[in-house]
Amino acid sequence: MNIEAVVFDAYGTLYDVQSVAEITEEAFPGYGEMITQIWRIKQLEYSWLRSMMQRYRDFSVITGESLAYTLRILGLQYDDAIFERIMEKYLHLDPYPDVMPTLAALKDRKLAILSNGSPGMLNALVANSGLDRMLDATISVDAKKVFKPSPDAYSLIETTLGVKSADVLFVSSNPWDACGAKAFGLNVAWIERVTPEAMALDCVESELVAPLTMFKAIGSQMDELGVEPDHRIRALSELPKIVAIHES
Amino acid sequence: MNIEAVVFDAYGTLYDVQSVAEITEEAFPGYGEMITQIWRIKQLEYSWLRSMMQRYRDFSVITGESLAYTLRILGLQYDDAIFERIMEKYLHLDPYPDVMPTLAALKDRKLAILSNGSPGMLNALVANSGLDRMLDATISVDAKKVFKPSPDAYSLIETTLGVKSADVLFVSSNPWDACGAKAFGLNVAWIERVTPEAMALDCVESELVAPLTMFKAIGSQMDELGVEPDHRIRALSELPKIVAIHES
Repeated sequence: MNIEAVVFDAYGTLYDVQSVAEITEEAFPGYGEMITQIWRIKQLEYSWLRSMMQRYRDFSVITGESLAYTLRILGLQYDDAIFERIMEKYLHLDPYPDVMPTLAALKDRKLAILSNGSPGMLNALVANSGLDRMLDATISVDAKKVFKPSPDAYSLIETTLGVKSADVLFVSSNPWDACGAKAFGLNVAWIERVTPEAMALDCVESELVAPLTMFKAIGSQMDELGVEPDHRIRALSELPKIVAIHES
Repeated sequence: MNIEAVVFDAYGTLYDVQSVAEITEEAFPGYGEMITQIWRIKQLEYSWLRSMMQRYRDFSVITGESLAYTLRILGLQYDDAIFERIMEKYLHLDPYPDVMPTLAALKDRKLAILSNGSPGMLNALVANSGLDRMLDATISVDAKKVFKPSPDAYSLIETTLGVKSADVLFVSSNPWDACGAKAFGLNVAWIERVTPEAMALDCVESELVAPLTMFKAIGSQMDELGVEPDHRIRALSELPKIVAIHES
């Protein structure tokens, strides 16, 4: 059984969504980290809730609505210019350092992104980061008007790339995404971008647990959803080895 | 247009889910509040994710899995007896003080619960709290094998009570539930169980924002989901007045 295509989640997997903390901190000193964590949690919640409510709007709308929510509950005042500057960061997220070398090492396979992002957001992001030259396809769930982890979203891999699920390795740092892909029938590698060790170091000693660390934890630690990814990795550089295992 | 039935969400609306903090604090001193907040967030996340993944399991399973997740990421050791004692609390949650008087005041309408809870959990809960004598029906989404805010879940009101959506007032403290019910077509009253004022008082002065307060905020403040409930109330005792408004 060969891995013909390696398909990546974008936000949190190839691109560091935590890198928005810099600009949110600049705009709202002292609140950067808090905004980043709440924004991400609500962005995901809204994607699931709108999917279930059958009220799909694309991810740029949801990203804006979840940012508006976050600033509101924190009681922060802002004007359109600041709001747009923060939103704009989503088109210029930093790729993790292991992305380019790994894509280069896997270039004899089909390589693609499958993301909740809207086509507009994703096309800008891959162009701005130079990833467009390395990928065979950038697939947005927008074609199905439903977000991951709906099976309809994952079905776009086969219809777009022409590769069967059994021959795809899907890679995500998002535990719920790794579980959703596995439930759908893909081979799945979960990349642990935040390790329990890093989490422990993060803890403030004066408290039993630092609540902000917990915000990160609830987005980064493997979930209890009755399915398990096939592989757990800590760096994308482990992928060529995993692809080789599937061939042996 | 008359309100023929008033239908309530259970957890957080009639019953105080925050009341589990007492037993979690007793079991894990210093962690009670943190466990309570993370458990609730993940319990909801798992209900949405399993719905989307088409891997429904009933709410007692999800409640157990989200508790196991919470204790794991907090690094807490436990045995089956402690785990069961905490879970058991979900069958003995405290009703808010305004529940009994309000149900009594509305007894000339059909009164029901529509909840994500499993039939077993709900039947025990309403019996233990004496609410079974006040309600015409306790409806579990389990009949549809999907959780709120799926339209299928809300459709159970009409099929069970025989009352059209236009003649139902649905009451929930959960912002996403109020939005889901409104999107489905019910009349909706959102009860603000945690007010922004209470939130502000909660804030620890030594920090800009207390992260634990934020955990509560992201579950209790109105969401940005493109729909708005018809009514915002701060106590269930406002309901008879709202029912009367619909008749005038």
